[in-house]
Amino acid sequence: MTATRLDLNCDMGEGFGAYAMGNDIAILDHVTSANIACGFHAGDPPTMRRVVGAALARGVAVGAHPGLPDLQGFGRRAMQVSPAEAYAMVVYQVGALMGFAQAAGGRLNHVKAHGALYNMAAKDRALADAIAQAVRDVDPSLVFFGLAGSEMIRAAEALGLQAAAEVFADRSYQDDGSLSPRGQPGAMIEDPAQSLAQVRQMLAGSVRAVSGRIVPLQADTLCIHGDQPGALEFARTLREALRGDGVVLQAPQRAAARAEAEARHG
Amino acid sequence: MTATRLDLNCDMGEGFGAYAMGNDIAILDHVTSANIACGFHAGDPPTMRRVVGAALARGVAVGAHPGLPDLQGFGRRAMQVSPAEAYAMVVYQVGALMGFAQAAGGRLNHVKAHGALYNMAAKDRALADAIAQAVRDVDPSLVFFGLAGSEMIRAAEALGLQAAAEVFADRSYQDDGSLSPRGQPGAMIEDPAQSLAQVRQMLAGSVRAVSGRIVPLQADTLCIHGDQPGALEFARTLREALRGDGVVLQAPQRAAARAEAEARHG
Amino acid sequence: MTATRLDLNCDMGEGFGAYAMGNDIAILDHVTSANIACGFHAGDPPTMRRVVGAALARGVAVGAHPGLPDLQGFGRRAMQVSPAEAYAMVVYQVGALMGFAQAAGGRLNHVKAHGALYNMAAKDRALADAIAQAVRDVDPSLVFFGLAGSEMIRAAEALGLQAAAEVFADRSYQDDGSLSPRGQPGAMIEDPAQSLAQVRQMLAGSVRAVSGRIVPLQADTLCIHGDQPGALEFARTLREALRGDGVVLQAPQRAAARAEAEARHG
Amino acid sequence: MTATRLDLNCDMGEGFGAYAMGNDIAILDHVTSANIACGFHAGDPPTMRRVVGAALARGVAVGAHPGLPDLQGFGRRAMQVSPAEAYAMVVYQVGALMGFAQAAGGRLNHVKAHGALYNMAAKDRALADAIAQAVRDVDPSLVFFGLAGSEMIRAAEALGLQAAAEVFADRSYQDDGSLSPRGQPGAMIEDPAQSLAQVRQMLAGSVRAVSGRIVPLQADTLCIHGDQPGALEFARTLREALRGDGVVLQAPQRAAARAEAEARHG
Repeated sequence: MTATRLDLNCDMGEGFGAYAMGNDIAILDHVTSANIACGFHAGDPPTMRRVVGAALARGVAVGAHPGLPDLQGFGRRAMQVSPAEAYAMVVYQVGALMGFAQAAGGRLNHVKAHGALYNMAAKDRALADAIAQAVRDVDPSLVFFGLAGSEMIRAAEALGLQAAAEVFADRSYQDDGSLSPRGQPGAMIEDPAQSLAQVRQMLAGSVRAVSGRIVPLQADTLCIHGDQPGALEFARTLREALRGDGVVLQAPQRAAARAEAEARHG
Repeated sequence: MTATRLDLNCDMGEGFGAYAMGNDIAILDHVTSANIACGFHAGDPPTMRRVVGAALARGVAVGAHPGLPDLQGFGRRAMQVSPAEAYAMVVYQVGALMGFAQAAGGRLNHVKAHGALYNMAAKDRALADAIAQAVRDVDPSLVFFGLAGSEMIRAAEALGLQAAAEVFADRSYQDDGSLSPRGQPGAMIEDPAQSLAQVRQMLAGSVRAVSGRIVPLQADTLCIHGDQPGALEFARTLREALRGDGVVLQAPQRAAARAEAEARHG
Repeated sequence: MTATRLDLNCDMGEGFGAYAMGNDIAILDHVTSANIACGFHAGDPPTMRRVVGAALARGVAVGAHPGLPDLQGFGRRAMQVSPAEAYAMVVYQVGALMGFAQAAGGRLNHVKAHGALYNMAAKDRALADAIAQAVRDVDPSLVFFGLAGSEMIRAAEALGLQAAAEVFADRSYQDDGSLSPRGQPGAMIEDPAQSLAQVRQMLAGSVRAVSGRIVPLQADTLCIHGDQPGALEFARTLREALRGDGVVLQAPQRAAARAEAEARHG
Repeated sequence: MTATRLDLNCDMGEGFGAYAMGNDIAILDHVTSANIACGFHAGDPPTMRRVVGAALARGVAVGAHPGLPDLQGFGRRAMQVSPAEAYAMVVYQVGALMGFAQAAGGRLNHVKAHGALYNMAAKDRALADAIAQAVRDVDPSLVFFGLAGSEMIRAAEALGLQAAAEVFADRSYQDDGSLSPRGQPGAMIEDPAQSLAQVRQMLAGSVRAVSGRIVPLQADTLCIHGDQPGALEFARTLREALRGDGVVLQAPQRAAARAEAEARHG
């Protein structure tokens, strides 16, 4: 069965104080969800305010992008945090971003963990459970983004959270559905046509692993990078191609929003 | 006219990582509102979680206690922050604490700025406006604590926020209603009987300044310190004396809570 | 009397973690002294190591550029630090950079305070004394850079430190020898010819203030910015013009180095 | 062969800003070397200054105690830092403490890594090499403290650094000479008599592992804790017993100091 909806998400708000980094506001014209850094691995209060406002103004769904407390390492260095520590750091960061969403008259729609926290939680169920529990405890209607097929998706579903399985157009996959490690030959897909083909196959429910094997895979949200040469151009091409295929590009809807909508239209 | 209600508030959650400091959980048995540090001048996510839980378990109202981003100076060193920076740092910290309140199944009731941020905003209307606006934008039903008679109270009222005027039992006052600067002779009131007398006079609407002049003063919430020798004992004595006077010790109620209560009982 | 020597200094190493900022390594080809950020307002250990190595490899004198502990504000926000706090934060940062200089087989040559710490110390003698004392206590042969005519120069000279008076080619001056505040009309000099003329007059011992008055001024080291459009080109032009005038472009020599040189050649 | 010299070292300066923690200054009367926190896992500039001064005033050798950049985790959480990052963070912290030692008119004598950095380097030769190289590059005469029998000792010796093998009186050992993991039954030795017996056996060159097996072990420096109940009393008893045995309690001497002493007396 072919999925007819896809969310396009990007990481945003990764500056800090006088420092700029990452996607420019321009990428917001090409995505449906923005994952906004929350001050631990990147981001600071004025940046969060500005980016939340920019996303809401464009109708892009706002999400929290919590990371490890390691600004110097940009949250990419694995740290031995306990599930209890992970729980608390996610509640904190999600709450902070929720503050900006509310202050701007909007709502927080989703949460996606960043960097090493994301990678560790994809494989470590206890960590994934702690993060999912944090999100659920703050607001059970939030959408929980996690690597497709990973422990994060299982943790979210076990708690009754709406999960969105994240896939990548520019990364190749292994037979178990995991991403090929960066640095390994063939890990990155640089040909736009190949990337687009991979996304189309994902929407049909599978991916061709580097071994050639066809691996089933759910695709709810696709990660878009806008800070590399040609990235905005690729985002535009991809978007047009998918629309041509009849795919609706749309952020996953919060459980509460769905409930309300169903109540209205039911 | 004599006030028949008074809130007793204390600062809490001032530890950081392996570091302990400030009021012990025991002080929660003697107050009606807890101002919980939010990670900038003190506090960290696991501490915030623990203290929010402890306060809610005792029926103590939970408040955010945002400060300047200066852990090394405990938020006590004045910093030249712009109103826009102050706005964003307050939204961030209030949001973070709101996250923990929601995660624990409770609600955030109030906000009280900390240390140098509090002192600067008491005198600087632009800063006070920015902080009050931040609180209002996150949640207009939050109660805004500020120094009695200061710019903070005026800023909150101008925005339609419910303000709570804070007074001190252990500090003497100047003719203009401001606190005598620490270090000045007579700035601190160390005699418990004199402190109690000052509180009783405040509930009647005034305070005797160090000059002897009677200065009008509104008293909605009294700051309680629990981390000095004899402090818990003084808190207990004060509480019993006030109850004996017929004063109801109670946290200020959020606007929304009041509205709901009125709707139910009206 | 016309000075025949001038140091050209630039701020360097202002990145942090994954963040880049400020002058590129290329500016090192145009200066004789590099002021390297020490981790408080900017800079981190790997960056410090890299920039120290790059400066030493080009024969550029290495200096510490200590700032306030405010990465988010890039050390530009005034903070109420005591002289004792300023002393300790300067010893710390100078020591850290000295570590990298020694590890690279070189020597630390000078210290220049950054941002708000520099601006505050220019006017506040107690702060200037504390910073100069810190530098002297770590190593009395270090050269102390300070705003020409400011309290920093007086503090350094009172302690027997070698002071280097810093001047600016792109800023206008007031009648008292201070810089015109940024934002004031005419504060910035954007015409390269006018900048060069100002530097030539400074080398002759004075500057024409915005009022037109001629104000005496000592010029030992000129601050070069390399991160604006046309900046490298201006630096090149300036350097060639000064060399054409017979000015020796050279870092101030440490007292110890001078003592050794004199011993050898005396 | 029985060692007739032993260094007693303790961790110091673990406060941060308004926060106090760890050993009190009083422990300095019972040790010969102080490992002083350098601002990453604990410690701040004013604390470093104060503790360096207190140690030097008592004739206690001053050492740097560099840790991971994780104040919230007190440097106890493992982090995936590269050897290059570890090198730079050690140069930085050692330099900073060297600054305070020089400013106080003293010298830095040794370096001992802290917490997770120490534990990781004990087993990871590449990390141990990076840390030892950092110490050697800053000053090759510094003494390098490391866990007895670990990769740290091998790394230091391979670089020609003077190594000091650290042992523990209150921890039990495994057959391979490593410490029994905390939490494992019998990991901690709480009986003072048993601790003293273990130290005496260590001075004779071995330790009885929990299995009963006798494992050879070199003991140059013994870690003393002063922040637990009875700790100061135990330190005093231990010191007197060892002196009674004829053991000279003395800090390891820097290579340069030895070289100078030999030159003088040779």
